[in-house]
Amino acid sequence: MINIKSKEKLLIALENKKHICVGLDSDLAKIPKHLLTNDDPIFEFNKSIVEATKEIAAAYKINLAFYEKDGSKGLQSLEKTLEIIPSNILVIGDAKRGDIGNTSQMYAQSLYEHFRFDSATLHPYMGYDSILPFLNYTDKVNFILALTSNPSSSDFEKLQLQSGEYLFKKVIEKTNEWNKNKNCGIVFGATHSNELSDNIKSFKDLFVLLPGVGTQGGSLKEVVQIFTQVNNNNYIINISRALIYADNSKNFESVIAKTISDIHSQVALFAKY
Amino acid sequence: MINIKSKEKLLIALENKKHICVGLDSDLAKIPKHLLTNDDPIFEFNKSIVEATKEIAAAYKINLAFYEKDGSKGLQSLEKTLEIIPSNILVIGDAKRGDIGNTSQMYAQSLYEHFRFDSATLHPYMGYDSILPFLNYTDKVNFILALTSNPSSSDFEKLQLQSGEYLFKKVIEKTNEWNKNKNCGIVFGATHSNELSDNIKSFKDLFVLLPGVGTQGGSLKEVVQIFTQVNNNNYIINISRALIYADNSKNFESVIAKTISDIHSQVALFAKY
Repeated sequence: MINIKSKEKLLIALENKKHICVGLDSDLAKIPKHLLTNDDPIFEFNKSIVEATKEIAAAYKINLAFYEKDGSKGLQSLEKTLEIIPSNILVIGDAKRGDIGNTSQMYAQSLYEHFRFDSATLHPYMGYDSILPFLNYTDKVNFILALTSNPSSSDFEKLQLQSGEYLFKKVIEKTNEWNKNKNCGIVFGATHSNELSDNIKSFKDLFVLLPGVGTQGGSLKEVVQIFTQVNNNNYIINISRALIYADNSKNFESVIAKTISDIHSQVALFAKY
Repeated sequence: MINIKSKEKLLIALENKKHICVGLDSDLAKIPKHLLTNDDPIFEFNKSIVEATKEIAAAYKINLAFYEKDGSKGLQSLEKTLEIIPSNILVIGDAKRGDIGNTSQMYAQSLYEHFRFDSATLHPYMGYDSILPFLNYTDKVNFILALTSNPSSSDFEKLQLQSGEYLFKKVIEKTNEWNKNKNCGIVFGATHSNELSDNIKSFKDLFVLLPGVGTQGGSLKEVVQIFTQVNNNNYIINISRALIYADNSKNFESVIAKTISDIHSQVALFAKY
């Protein structure tokens, strides 16, 4: 088996015009009822979703909260899930970590060595030394929160600094500085299409992870068109709830396969591929 | 057994002039070597530390990174540790979480319902709706990161806003607004004594968790004196590495008992108790 480096997985997916990130926000209360008789329903659900989406997915994003909710047992489901995701597809640990250097080192070990994620999401608030232990993994993809998809992103992220620029813009600038090994990205909410349009030129070589399409109301069309207009191909669009809970019948796998295929076609259309 | 509410535990400790929070940043590479023959050395170490400190500790702070590093197995050590901490002492889940509302709800369930922590540390960056699921637990203590103890806290936390105030000051203001149920606190690095002195009047009713004394270089004396000068008794000072690794002989428990007792006496002296 050829061991593809983490970052390489994403680059190959993007070259192949794949832009959909499948978010595994797997919740016992929402998965098809017939799976509940299994020993580990969450794992069985994830296995089906991966089976239904693996030909099209550019990445999988695992939302750690949904596993931590059940403590050590939840992490076992996560560990099992990670084993069945094809080794050529980027897996993002959506953990939004960030702590003093000594502690971030442990979080990086957890995500990149124990769980062997290819990528992680990180909180910028505590600054460079809280991110550095992750940056030291030069083949990984470190997505730093810039402008998030939630309504309260206006509380702090959109505050204006003395220089006149928004805090989130400063985070993008700093992330560009930290990107010496081309292993950085940003999280930018698809719900903010105006800000996306206004700031896309500052993204330079950064990978961009866009949550917020689907349940949160972001427009797939707008996002893809904004990237296409500036010839930036470096983005993945996360879809969680609107995809993985598209159906809860016994036949859910085929409905989800069809759903991701439709979204993929829409992206291709909007991107003029 | 009387079931004391989480917040009440902290209030009682503070009334009893207890201000030391014991940080369980337990690391296999640093604990006494003779413990390594146990099935679960981290748990055995924590048990000894709790035994040695429980009469004096105002709180325990569990740094989740040190357990997540070992995945589901690490969380089992954490789950066992939580069972042996006396039920009258506040236990802080130092997790630094923060995500969109739907996900933060899961993190809150993880920390407050699965692990049954009394308190958690939270990232403010994503704003109010990322904190709200935690605030809804009205008897818990939610510590929001204001000015952290690490050198790179200057990257974003100390940026000046258009209003002239620092970002961390804005976080304190917002946290005061969110404190309707008196279940909020802030994290303020003991390494920033000037900023502590300048801003302490804005803390109002907020509980204050101060990391950074010890290995990171913050001064116990300065911190205690600053709070004492303004008659604010609402603070706990975290000490992790400088206390729990004070000795690694077979006799480490008694050395640690003596160490925390000495620190406690110093606090009493500086606070003029």
